[in-house]
Amino acid sequence: MCSWKKNVREVVPYVPGEQPKQANVLKLNTNENPYPPAPEVMDAITLVSREDLSRYPDPDCTALREAIGKQYGFTKNEVFVGVGSDEVLSTAFLTFFASDTPILYPDITYEFYPVWANLYGIPFRCPKVDENFRIHKEDYYQKNGGIVIPNPNAPTSIGEPLDFVEDILQHNPDSVVIIDEAYADFSGVSALPLVKKYDNLLVTQTFSKSRSLAGMRIGYAIGQPELIAAMSAVRNSINSYTMNHYALAAGKAAVEADDYFRENVRKICSTREQTAERLRSLGFRFPDSRTNFFFAEHERVPARQLFEDLRKAGILVRYFDRPRVNNRLRITVGTPEQMDRLCQFLEEYLKKN
Amino acid sequence: MCSWKKNVREVVPYVPGEQPKQANVLKLNTNENPYPPAPEVMDAITLVSREDLSRYPDPDCTALREAIGKQYGFTKNEVFVGVGSDEVLSTAFLTFFASDTPILYPDITYEFYPVWANLYGIPFRCPKVDENFRIHKEDYYQKNGGIVIPNPNAPTSIGEPLDFVEDILQHNPDSVVIIDEAYADFSGVSALPLVKKYDNLLVTQTFSKSRSLAGMRIGYAIGQPELIAAMSAVRNSINSYTMNHYALAAGKAAVEADDYFRENVRKICSTREQTAERLRSLGFRFPDSRTNFFFAEHERVPARQLFEDLRKAGILVRYFDRPRVNNRLRITVGTPEQMDRLCQFLEEYLKKN
Repeated sequence: MCSWKKNVREVVPYVPGEQPKQANVLKLNTNENPYPPAPEVMDAITLVSREDLSRYPDPDCTALREAIGKQYGFTKNEVFVGVGSDEVLSTAFLTFFASDTPILYPDITYEFYPVWANLYGIPFRCPKVDENFRIHKEDYYQKNGGIVIPNPNAPTSIGEPLDFVEDILQHNPDSVVIIDEAYADFSGVSALPLVKKYDNLLVTQTFSKSRSLAGMRIGYAIGQPELIAAMSAVRNSINSYTMNHYALAAGKAAVEADDYFRENVRKICSTREQTAERLRSLGFRFPDSRTNFFFAEHERVPARQLFEDLRKAGILVRYFDRPRVNNRLRITVGTPEQMDRLCQFLEEYLKKN
Repeated sequence: MCSWKKNVREVVPYVPGEQPKQANVLKLNTNENPYPPAPEVMDAITLVSREDLSRYPDPDCTALREAIGKQYGFTKNEVFVGVGSDEVLSTAFLTFFASDTPILYPDITYEFYPVWANLYGIPFRCPKVDENFRIHKEDYYQKNGGIVIPNPNAPTSIGEPLDFVEDILQHNPDSVVIIDEAYADFSGVSALPLVKKYDNLLVTQTFSKSRSLAGMRIGYAIGQPELIAAMSAVRNSINSYTMNHYALAAGKAAVEADDYFRENVRKICSTREQTAERLRSLGFRFPDSRTNFFFAEHERVPARQLFEDLRKAGILVRYFDRPRVNNRLRITVGTPEQMDRLCQFLEEYLKKN
């Protein structure tokens, strides 16, 4: 083998859900929002001029950070923005977990955590969620180099109350504690009110789910200024300008369209509750979802078979082929019409299988 | 101090040229293109729908990679795209330089190289360019863990011929050799014709300069499929979707608008030659530029003073306060009208200083 190959980094990347190119596929596999972003987002897009495009965007993302801060009661210096919460979390791992002591996160959770940890050489330990997929806060009382708690957790869809998060913070004043709130808008529980109280708390959220902007790649972190400055320094050691003009414009408009956003989240939560009932009556079992998806097993039909047969019928859901979760499907909550198509297919299918 | 702080990564980030918010500033400090992108870019932007925005973009960036490949005679599997050539180069450093032997690049060059090397723990050694800022190819015959050669180099503006690049490749079959061609469209010399011949050659280019899309953040690397696959795996270990819908659409339209691009580059090179003559007659000295900027010192007035007085007059240029280059200004080539404003100011100024 050519000897330059010995210097090539070996990684096992994260594999995202597929983005099919054919039409008429019912896409319930990546937890996207079934509703488009606020109309104001498109208005903001049209204001970006041809001349703007030849100029670098604002490397400090000032207007977007201010808009997010204003929405939640923080200043720009308490807000970091990045290319989806993936870039935000990746940067946070690289910034805060330069530790020899393992970081902690649950064994069943977002599969990107071990990928980042391996890439950046961060040791990690994964306390097991219990047989009902619940995280036990006592597992996070041990010595650690940092903590990541997704709340609600994915793919389990389970959310914990705020005192659960605060208990973990109280037991870990010497660690940066990241609360990954990609789905928190659907649970109504956020650790943002704790940011002023804990200088080691970083809360991450995303525009990809509740704000209907998966296609723009915008995520953010909120924490005290010292945390945000450390992340910004690392980000500025990789790429000075990560957010293009359109992402900056769309993000600001989306966060300011608060009524649209709330109504959109309300509709999805309502569809979730109606669909939960129907799926349970069809023999599916799953935790109460605090997200925009279900983590479901069927009482009779194996998940892998269901996954493949749904796929043949043009309905994409997510299946994770790994221990403890390989009889479960992660199914995104869509519009009522999309949930009808899913449930009607399942009704017919389960009569025959 | 709180003990979580000991696990925070310490970095010295790159500092980009400023992006002023006030109008009527003549911005010659970040080597942006003075002409807007092709009209077809705006047409492509309008085709992105509101519904598209709620869906994740294509994580493989297939259409954009195919369009770039087609332009230069490569397949999609020989093209990597990222958020500006900064993300592309950063990913290449992380992917290919997992070495204990120092990588090599010139001591006077793009200031981001040492930032990435430090962030990723890559040892490096920097052979000195000579008193005329020329790179000596013999300096790259020593044992190394990888090589980065910017051609043309920045901020020196000097370009080397293709046989210079090939000589370095011939002496380094055991290293990945990155040729950073951010400015190559202005020199007319590219190592792309060598890609099929050398499996260890990676060529990086950007849409930010010659294609007038600094504001969209699009860069790319071209190399044999094994190199591109290794970079993609690392990229997919950080963020599955880095390019948003608008970047994908704008990039494709820009690379396909080939006549517009060529005419644009021709205009800038023509303005460069005319401006070079005027600046020399004003007492400036600089290498022949193969880029869209000059690396100039004045025979009498110190660069720092010129930098500050230009700034007061609303003309931004770049000044690097470090040894060997701290009596030089990096001045972007703009439109003929912008160069008139610069030269007219300098004519008056130099009468009095």
